[in-house]
Parts: sequence; structure tokens; C-alpha cells
Amino acid sequence: MAKAKNSKKEKPVILITNDDGITAPGIKALTDAVKDLGKVVVVAPDKPQSGMGHAITIGQPLRLTAVETFGDIEAYQCSGTPVDCVKLAVDKVLHRKPDICLSGINHGANHSINVIYSGTMSAALEASIESIPSIGFSLLDYSIEADFAGAAYYANLLVKQIISKKIDKHLCLNVNIPIAPKELLKGLKVCRQAYAKYEERFDERHDPSGRKYYWLTGEFQNFDKGKDTDVWALENNYVSVVPVQFDLTNYTLKTKLQKVLTQKH
Amino acid sequence: MAKAKNSKKEKPVILITNDDGITAPGIKALTDAVKDLGKVVVVAPDKPQSGMGHAITIGQPLRLTAVETFGDIEAYQCSGTPVDCVKLAVDKVLHRKPDICLSGINHGANHSINVIYSGTMSAALEASIESIPSIGFSLLDYSIEADFAGAAYYANLLVKQIISKKIDKHLCLNVNIPIAPKELLKGLKVCRQAYAKYEERFDERHDPSGRKYYWLTGEFQNFDKGKDTDVWALENNYVSVVPVQFDLTNYTLKTKLQKVLTQKH
Repeated sequence: MAKAKNSKKEKPVILITNDDGITAPGIKALTDAVKDLGKVVVVAPDKPQSGMGHAITIGQPLRLTAVETFGDIEAYQCSGTPVDCVKLAVDKVLHRKPDICLSGINHGANHSINVIYSGTMSAALEASIESIPSIGFSLLDYSIEADFAGAAYYANLLVKQIISKKIDKHLCLNVNIPIAPKELLKGLKVCRQAYAKYEERFDERHDPSGRKYYWLTGEFQNFDKGKDTDVWALENNYVSVVPVQFDLTNYTLKTKLQKVLTQKH
Repeated sequence: MAKAKNSKKEKPVILITNDDGITAPGIKALTDAVKDLGKVVVVAPDKPQSGMGHAITIGQPLRLTAVETFGDIEAYQCSGTPVDCVKLAVDKVLHRKPDICLSGINHGANHSINVIYSGTMSAALEASIESIPSIGFSLLDYSIEADFAGAAYYANLLVKQIISKKIDKHLCLNVNIPIAPKELLKGLKVCRQAYAKYEERFDERHDPSGRKYYWLTGEFQNFDKGKDTDVWALENNYVSVVPVQFDLTNYTLKTKLQKVLTQKH
């Protein structure tokens, strides 16, 4: 599908999705934060989809239903994953590529390795694969009553700049916001992804009939002492901004492997 | 968990998983291909999990059940995703990190952008995050009756080298094998990920009660003319080997953004 260009008089089209589901306070906060910047359309999952990563629905069909919970903003809930929402929005709701795709505001952190598991960031990455600049927003607060004021302020600041500066058609930003009153946030900080992850284990239990089952649990650990990482920025009350790419090639290892691998017996 | 080191007399431990499910012929072919190279343990999903990306199960518990379909090889089916299988295998089956984790052989291609959606490759990537070298194998043939002879040959060749050469603890290889008789395959080719993807659309239908539903469909298109890509290699009968990384930071854009973004109002 060719990218439809707006004339200068038309408002930019802003597609908004998330992974916490269309009823989550975070997506309402994001919509409110940017609705003065363009024509906003919401297409989001009809249920929570956290931890879905870049899952897509290929074995069953999808449903799309208009909802009226966003006032005068066009909004739909979709039965699929966050990535499905982006694909379906472009093909069946907008009938064009939006000028920008936003995802979130997620209830909980998506810094460091979390970017890999995050439905929020996978939706943003999907947009960037489709040459739609995108930003995923996550607040480091899982609470349903989280204060989105700081996150909303920086979402507006960033979206305004990304729309006007047209930096890269594959631009994808992973933005995390610390838990702090807006006044205490020190500003945006462009970072790299920290090597920090969950040290996981499974809690082993028995069901009433005696069969074992396992719950994933674990503690977050930072193995990365760099001061240029998203984890460092967040610990120091900056809003972290990590540009993310979908080319997963490890070029350093590629060169090494070309030297050491025997190609054939 | 500390990485358990084998003494020289102990066989390397090889963990095998997939995303097509434990009954798929591809995982049997992979197990057979490498069982002479170490102590093989299989932990794979109890049902197909294609397109699950890096999804993890966080809202419900997991089940793990021993199965005897791999002869004298220890094998378990898990109710979770491919990534869950790797995590659960390390914590509850092996009680240590394996020396290598293999995923596949997938029935169908995981070259180019497919690496992002692939459960096969997400399992491999999960292992590499945990400092376990890993390889995902995919044959460009969706058929249940696919001929795995060529894939098995190169799986054995590669695994032997990766075990003995200890190249990098975070090594993760995305290996795709063309549909061709083993004799016609030209050898391994280390490549980069092509910018090639599905141009997707949704097939719109109506259910018996008149409500709309949508099926994802589309055609694969290669936008990348490079001769150093996985798509080129496969079209020319090479087995493509792309080293994959979990640091998604776009360092080029990071430098650019540091210059152009206003950090605060």
C-alpha cells in the first residue's frame, strides 16, 4: 500500500494502540495527551495482552468492534494481539498508513530486555517495519491508579517533535517514564538498551488433584554498569528514549563466523 | 543460576525445543540429527505455537508432562510458549544451563523479517539472553511430509562446530535451509537479515449471523537487492546462517536523536 501523503492543511493521522487492552487508563491518558496534535484513531486489544511479544494471530480470524469510550475519537477494539491491531488498523480502519503510531502508555516498565517480551513495543516495532514512525510509552508503575501526568507531558513533547522533524521512516522509540511527579523529571535522555533482565525461576505448586503446575516468577537484575543505558537514566529520573530496530543481525559476530565456520564437510 | 561446567569426559547437554509442537516431524528430525553429539533433552510445546514471537505466559501457570515418543531420549511437553519451554527446561528439568539450545526444525521459513514473529527463533533468542549459545533451524517447506535430510546434515555440521569452538556465550544463529535434495545444497553461508516481508492484507468475511471477521493473508516481497542477505543465499541454494542479537538499540539513530531532540520544554 502506498503511503498517502497529507497536504499541509490536513492534520497528521495518529494511530494509537497498546497491550493492556482498550479499557486501560494508560491508553486514555496517551490519547488525551496527543489529541491536539492530529486526527487520533484508536485500535487496541479487547483484553490484556501483556507479554505477548511479537505474536500474531494466524490460526484464527480476528474481530473488530467500534467502541464509544473515547468520546469523539474514533476507536475500535480488536480480538487479536497488539501487532494484529496495527496490521488491521492500516488495512481495514484507516485504509492508509498513519503518520505516526503510538503504543501505550503501558502500565509497567519496558526498558532493557523487556523490549523483547513487550506487546507495547512489538506494536510499535510492527509499525516501523511498515515504514510508519512509532513510539511506545511505558510508565514504571503497574498500578491501575498510576499518575500519568509526567508521561503525558513527555508524550506530547516527543510526538510533536517526531511528527515535525520526520527523522526516519523506520524510526521506533522505546520510551520509559520513571515514577515521579512531573516536576521532578529531568527531561528526555537518548540511551541504549541495558543488559538487565529477570533472573527467573518457577514456583512449583500442586493442584487439588495432586498434579504439579508452575508459576513464572523472578527478580530483576541489572548486569550493565553503563551510564548510557535506559536503566541508568530511569534510576536518575530521566525519561529514557531508546531507538529500536528490527534488523536483528549481529554484524560483529557475522564477520567472526565468516572466518571460523566450516561451510561444508 | 551458575553455569555448570562439564568436565571433559561429560557429554555436552543439548536442549531441544520448537514452535510447531512436540509431535511435529521437524523436532524428531533435529533430535535424530544431533543425538550422537551429546546428551539430548527435549522440552517442547504441547501444541503448535507458530507466530507466537517472544510471548511468555504470565497470567496463568504452566504444565510439564513427560512423554515417551523420543525413544530413550528424555522428553517433556509444556503447556506454554516456546520461550516458556526454554525457561522451564533450565529451571525444572535440567537444573542447569545446557551447553547449547536448539530450536526446530521449523516447518517453514524464518528468514528476513520472519525472525521477529517466529516462535522457533524466539526460543533460541531466549537461550542466548540466558548466556546459552543457540541455533534455530527452519526448512523452507511447510509440508508435514517435508524431506529433512539436508537440514539434518547441516544441523549436525553446525552444532558440532558451535559446541567445540565456543565462539560467544550469547551466540544465536538463525539457520534456514532451502527446499532441495541434500546433494544440491551448496553449503553454509553467513548472511545478514534481508529487508523482506509480507505485504499483508485481511480477507473480510461474514459469519452465519452476519458479523464481519478477518483472516490475515498476504504475499512475501523482497525489498532488499543485497547479495549478502539470507533471502539471496536461500534463492541460490545455500543454507543461510544469520547471527542474531537481542540488543535492539539502533545506534545510528541514537547518535542522530541526541543531536535533534529537544530534551525538555
